[in-house]
Amino acid sequence: MTAALRVTVPDAGWLERLADLADRVDLEVWDIAQQPQPEGRIDLAVSGYPNATEGLRRIDPERLGVLQLQTLGHDGVLEALPAGVTCCNAIGVHEGSTAELAIALLLASQRQLDRYAREQGQWNRRWSPSLQDRRIMLLGHGGIGTEVEKRLIGFDAELVRVASRRRQDERGVVHGTDELADLLPTVDAVVVAVPLSEQTVGLVDDDFLAALPDGAVVVNISRGKVTDTDAVVRQAGRIRYATDVTDPEPLPADHPLWEVPGVLISPHVGGMSTAMQPRIDAVVRRQIALLLDGRSPHSVVISPGRS
Amino acid sequence: MTAALRVTVPDAGWLERLADLADRVDLEVWDIAQQPQPEGRIDLAVSGYPNATEGLRRIDPERLGVLQLQTLGHDGVLEALPAGVTCCNAIGVHEGSTAELAIALLLASQRQLDRYAREQGQWNRRWSPSLQDRRIMLLGHGGIGTEVEKRLIGFDAELVRVASRRRQDERGVVHGTDELADLLPTVDAVVVAVPLSEQTVGLVDDDFLAALPDGAVVVNISRGKVTDTDAVVRQAGRIRYATDVTDPEPLPADHPLWEVPGVLISPHVGGMSTAMQPRIDAVVRRQIALLLDGRSPHSVVISPGRS
Repeated sequence: MTAALRVTVPDAGWLERLADLADRVDLEVWDIAQQPQPEGRIDLAVSGYPNATEGLRRIDPERLGVLQLQTLGHDGVLEALPAGVTCCNAIGVHEGSTAELAIALLLASQRQLDRYAREQGQWNRRWSPSLQDRRIMLLGHGGIGTEVEKRLIGFDAELVRVASRRRQDERGVVHGTDELADLLPTVDAVVVAVPLSEQTVGLVDDDFLAALPDGAVVVNISRGKVTDTDAVVRQAGRIRYATDVTDPEPLPADHPLWEVPGVLISPHVGGMSTAMQPRIDAVVRRQIALLLDGRSPHSVVISPGRS
Repeated sequence: MTAALRVTVPDAGWLERLADLADRVDLEVWDIAQQPQPEGRIDLAVSGYPNATEGLRRIDPERLGVLQLQTLGHDGVLEALPAGVTCCNAIGVHEGSTAELAIALLLASQRQLDRYAREQGQWNRRWSPSLQDRRIMLLGHGGIGTEVEKRLIGFDAELVRVASRRRQDERGVVHGTDELADLLPTVDAVVVAVPLSEQTVGLVDDDFLAALPDGAVVVNISRGKVTDTDAVVRQAGRIRYATDVTDPEPLPADHPLWEVPGVLISPHVGGMSTAMQPRIDAVVRRQIALLLDGRSPHSVVISPGRS
């Protein structure tokens, strides 16, 4: 019996995890960044994690149906990928894990766990800000922002939600970014979960930080370039900053941001949790099931015939 | 006009915050631990924070109606307080803040923020456990436990709730502690929020920790004596432990627990957040309003005529 679908995966671990599909799917390893494209037509190729754009330009689009990314973002991928290949991202895989890290950074910074971790051996009790009864801004209301919101609901905080344009949803008003100047002085914390775009580069700048009250904390789980890093260094001591992303990234060991009081940095690990593997496996299994049924894959970010 | 009620507060800050009540309430400072009881009858005395049992034995119960604690717990207070004084605790003031710290410790430990805080200057990306899609045990389902539960609901985790006795509530089954041996091997994390009692002293011991899977984390926001600290030291490297309470407390600088890998300690600051002051003020204002109405105060933990 010939398998109905030909699928490539980036490493041998995937072969084991999908072994139960062997009667309907031909599975083989193709590390796109390192190896030439195998002979013959491939229906679905799962790319490596994180994305590497090397190798994408070499792809023969006549012999590849669908490229499945393991990431939500696709910086540089669409530019490198030859026209004619359908490209899908990994919706539902990383948003929850990234939102969870946002809450972790927010709470650790508020409750001073970074200081206590550095001071182990000392019993230094200090008062700290809480989320309870405070106003927390959620800046960005897409896939990650809504997962942050879901996790904040139980914390007895007043959520001030901001997106690119003002709108209403079932939980009330979502403010527009044009209202930021009025809103920032009223909040105790900001979680930044906007996508990187021309409108959001440098959004967290001197004016933004200066508008916040003393002791406020900014959490960034978006992209490093959304923040003007020098502005954070200039606000040292007045504003706290907890971030999973930096500019540049990785942050060099001698960068001044490492030494700023009140700054906590995790090294872009929002998606690097135990949540990922079962969830990306499920995404790939669903795509395989759709293709076996002769249907289109989910979560298409670019497809032939659309620009 | 004579004020209808005489109330003492532990410091001058309280006088300012309650100044708007001056037409109906005589307010004065009485630091119970340091000062003799003022002459005449006092309707309501607010004690200091945290509780000091010094001074309580000196109280003349004929001249004090109600002692209002600023804490939820009352270790040693009821033993020291002369019979005849009504004593009230501070329900609703600290539970949310303490539950928030429990989530902070859980997330910081899971997502390795304590390690990243200690390694600032290094860009060391690591995979870490998440809450998403995992099983989290909540051990203790009283005032703090239910606040922990409320905050965990948004995290896509399966909650395994355990209390002293098995019961049902609107969210399903609450297991009994007699089921612990079967449940512990199935969970990735445990948040301990039980009260300290003869039944819970040493609950987190060698058997408890040995029953947990490798890499599990135990968060303790209860009391230090609920955990056998030596057992945690013996499980170093296999189990992680994040705690706001220790035994002894404060933990001496040379105690081995400070140096155990995978241990994060905060110095009993669950209630020491910005949430406290507005909430304890509201409790005292409510008690004053009740007494002015000739009604009984809320949250009585001991009253004359009851043992």
